Amino acid sequence: MKITFCCTDTKAEPWLTGLEAALPGAQVALWQPGAPPADHAVVWAPPQQFFDEQPQLKGIFNIGAGVDALMKLRLPPQATLVRLDDAGMSVQMAEYVCHAVIRHFREFDGYEADMRAGQWSYRKPRHRADFSVGVMGLGVLGERVARALQMFEFPVNGWSRSVKTIAGVRGFAGVAQFDDFLRATRVLVNLLPLTPDTQDVMNRETLSKLQPGGYVINVARGAHLVDDDLITLLDSGHLAGATLDVFRTEPLPAEHPFWTHPKISLTPHTSARTLREESIAQIAGKIMALECGDPVAGIVDPERGY
Amino acid sequence: MKITFCCTDTKAEPWLTGLEAALPGAQVALWQPGAPPADHAVVWAPPQQFFDEQPQLKGIFNIGAGVDALMKLRLPPQATLVRLDDAGMSVQMAEYVCHAVIRHFREFDGYEADMRAGQWSYRKPRHRADFSVGVMGLGVLGERVARALQMFEFPVNGWSRSVKTIAGVRGFAGVAQFDDFLRATRVLVNLLPLTPDTQDVMNRETLSKLQPGGYVINVARGAHLVDDDLITLLDSGHLAGATLDVFRTEPLPAEHPFWTHPKISLTPHTSARTLREESIAQIAGKIMALECGDPVAGIVDPERGY
Repeated sequence: MKITFCCTDTKAEPWLTGLEAALPGAQVALWQPGAPPADHAVVWAPPQQFFDEQPQLKGIFNIGAGVDALMKLRLPPQATLVRLDDAGMSVQMAEYVCHAVIRHFREFDGYEADMRAGQWSYRKPRHRADFSVGVMGLGVLGERVARALQMFEFPVNGWSRSVKTIAGVRGFAGVAQFDDFLRATRVLVNLLPLTPDTQDVMNRETLSKLQPGGYVINVARGAHLVDDDLITLLDSGHLAGATLDVFRTEPLPAEHPFWTHPKISLTPHTSARTLREESIAQIAGKIMALECGDPVAGIVDPERGY
Repeated sequence: MKITFCCTDTKAEPWLTGLEAALPGAQVALWQPGAPPADHAVVWAPPQQFFDEQPQLKGIFNIGAGVDALMKLRLPPQATLVRLDDAGMSVQMAEYVCHAVIRHFREFDGYEADMRAGQWSYRKPRHRADFSVGVMGLGVLGERVARALQMFEFPVNGWSRSVKTIAGVRGFAGVAQFDDFLRATRVLVNLLPLTPDTQDVMNRETLSKLQPGGYVINVARGAHLVDDDLITLLDSGHLAGATLDVFRTEPLPAEHPFWTHPKISLTPHTSARTLREESIAQIAGKIMALECGDPVAGIVDPERGY
């Protein structure tokens, strides 16, 4: 069995070694133009040329949860496209989102500024019941985030394309209930897949429907958010702040207004990193399952785009 | 039934109104020197004179979880002393501690400094298995904190005076196992009651036993920590940092070195605030139970001091 590896921005050597160790007998090689045909591919943001030269691929394994970059390419039609479906990412996402929600709710930035100024001052505790958190996207990551938030007793709303029931989470589904979801939400957490349907989903109209003092946490894709609309609503005071991990262009261009906006906290697409060891184990398991005709989790539906 | 209210640093009016509403028929009055004898007292850091003038008290209800301030006074010997045993504090404590642990583990301060400097830079993800968190004190608050940390998959150790079993928490008990607990711990969370036995428990000798890169989170009482010893170990590099919410003298004196230490994050004793409505409901319920001879949670053992 031949496996070709084509991942931009990724140090290849440890992946090649790791995949070979996890799949005894397999030949794992870094892709180069003109490389011989392989059975399966492990990819991250490969060029179109890669797929044009490898039309025979049976399985394509994305080393991330979001496959939006692949959806823009022409893939071999018979290939099964598989995304990473947890591999240590959901706990990281729960950490990131809970940290951002607690930091905002508890006003830790305000306390820190006071203490740095040598001021010992109390703030009136805020009511947890007034800080409903709405999670858009209830896949593996969104569900884990919703459960983690519940442990801190925030009211949690969930919105997904089709109805999804999670104990203790007030569920909303589909376009018909999107407005109700937004109006019931103060802190909006985006964990949607990026598809033509979800692009620009956070815009002036939708974000205006969040409760006053709304807060936006974007940990999915930059193209879900209309940057200028967020800034307008932050500056008008309707939104209190935002924590952003993902951007339309990454790295965020030097001249972008997000860098210096006082109400925005930034991180460099680090909310849930692909952990190599966990990912290798998961992908190796999925390759074996695909070869044996066993069911595989995380198969992408090209029609839905995730 | 007469209830007297004597709480320093507390706005009395809403407590008096709330307690009267929760205990129909009771007379609730703010204590003043020479006030008539009452059946029960609701207190926070009262003067010795208060107890000297009210020797007949049946119940003394502290509006906080820690009763160390009362343990320094002579109390009416027949009175039952009761502390607040959750009243919305445990969720706040879980929030505070999880926020501090995640902030440190995920290096969010470092990312924020990079981003403020206009730098988009990755850091190598740290291994969760290397960040064992040790919770000292496994009462209502400590147990809740330990459970919350488990959700983020940190290895969690617990240490308490007597053996306490919490699923998924590696338990240590008593003086005999304290060293083992410290050596197994990288991030130390203090939630002990303050008693003569636990005063100065975090000192140069004990903190030196934490794993290299240790981190200290003190959310109990300032007198648990020897301030100079913490600074020595931060400056030597054995400890990576500390988050402190409580101090030997509060407000923290202007000249104290904690204010400006680059490895210390401070908050003004705000980790778990007494929430008035929840506390009134709990204290009213406990007064009724005490009057009826029913069991009451949170009775303080004067011998143990908590």
